[in-house]
Amino acid sequence: MSGLNAIDRLTALLARLPGIGKKSAARMAYHILEKDRTFAASLAGELSNLHTAIRRCSVCGNFTEEDPCPICADTGRDASIICVVERPQDVRVIEESREFRGLFHVLGGLIAPLEGVYPGDLSIGKLLSRIRAGGVAEVILALNPTMEGDSTSLYLQKPLKELGVGVSRLATGIPAGGDLEYSDRLTLSRSLRGRVSL
Amino acid sequence: MSGLNAIDRLTALLARLPGIGKKSAARMAYHILEKDRTFAASLAGELSNLHTAIRRCSVCGNFTEEDPCPICADTGRDASIICVVERPQDVRVIEESREFRGLFHVLGGLIAPLEGVYPGDLSIGKLLSRIRAGGVAEVILALNPTMEGDSTSLYLQKPLKELGVGVSRLATGIPAGGDLEYSDRLTLSRSLRGRVSL
Repeated sequence: MSGLNAIDRLTALLARLPGIGKKSAARMAYHILEKDRTFAASLAGELSNLHTAIRRCSVCGNFTEEDPCPICADTGRDASIICVVERPQDVRVIEESREFRGLFHVLGGLIAPLEGVYPGDLSIGKLLSRIRAGGVAEVILALNPTMEGDSTSLYLQKPLKELGVGVSRLATGIPAGGDLEYSDRLTLSRSLRGRVSL
Repeated sequence: MSGLNAIDRLTALLARLPGIGKKSAARMAYHILEKDRTFAASLAGELSNLHTAIRRCSVCGNFTEEDPCPICADTGRDASIICVVERPQDVRVIEESREFRGLFHVLGGLIAPLEGVYPGDLSIGKLLSRIRAGGVAEVILALNPTMEGDSTSLYLQKPLKELGVGVSRLATGIPAGGDLEYSDRLTLSRSLRGRVSL
């Protein structure tokens, strides 16, 4: 087929989305084309509107339509616990677990010197200011159990403890419904070290 | 989180795409949000333009920007062979194999009485007219080897043969790079029946 037509151009853009290969992108483009145009129009509308509607919460750094975000503004939540996460989508995941009723702080990344991400690039100063403003008793470091996540947690521990707050991190171990046989060695050794008395 | 915000609305729309679950849709939405707004704008632009730019080729039924489509208009192709496919995306897949230099005909579906798709709903009359117009020597039925694909091939055989054209269908068998051990019984029995003398 000669030249790039509208389907190819849409496919190429969709293929730049995370987890979407060329085949899935083409499948999506044809699906949109086969549906009536109102679906394409709604999708186009939401995409055009997205960056205008959504900003960062000036308190926690989460994506939000109002500033401060609904979580920071909710007086029913426990302001004495701050859960520190890497990205806004982590806030969503933790919210969906319905296990946490405190506030959040989005770092905006993890320390990764090899990729050029240094502590100064993250929202660490703002986190420490929030704690200095008082009322915070505990900080939960809910960063991914990867090398970058662990380094970042390690880096944050000292300044946080100096401010007199309790610091914890998420438990690492066998996932619920998981199988010992298929666990990697690191997960298994961490779940052993973190074993819980019954 | 209370109420649907712009991220949730975009996520819900993306989750309606084929093969995209709620998690992937959210991942895509956050990715778009984190990229600069020109990406979202290009995607929105292509989506708005899609149904205007693309129509059906009046000859073969494929999606196209010009009518007739570049394939039907290409005088360098072999007009004596027509490859019959279910959907426009099948044209793309076969074109990418670079194995076929004839023309196409898009049926627009497969006969499936249980889902309310009858022969009259497909572009069968148009296919027969193209053949009656002369110059066609062979028709390749390139329909999926499913129950619906097989019934449709069976249904088409008689009228096609009556018009004096050769009729063939794609070979069914073990996929290239496949493993006998993991082949299902039907594929294996078909690949035995369709064995090729060496």
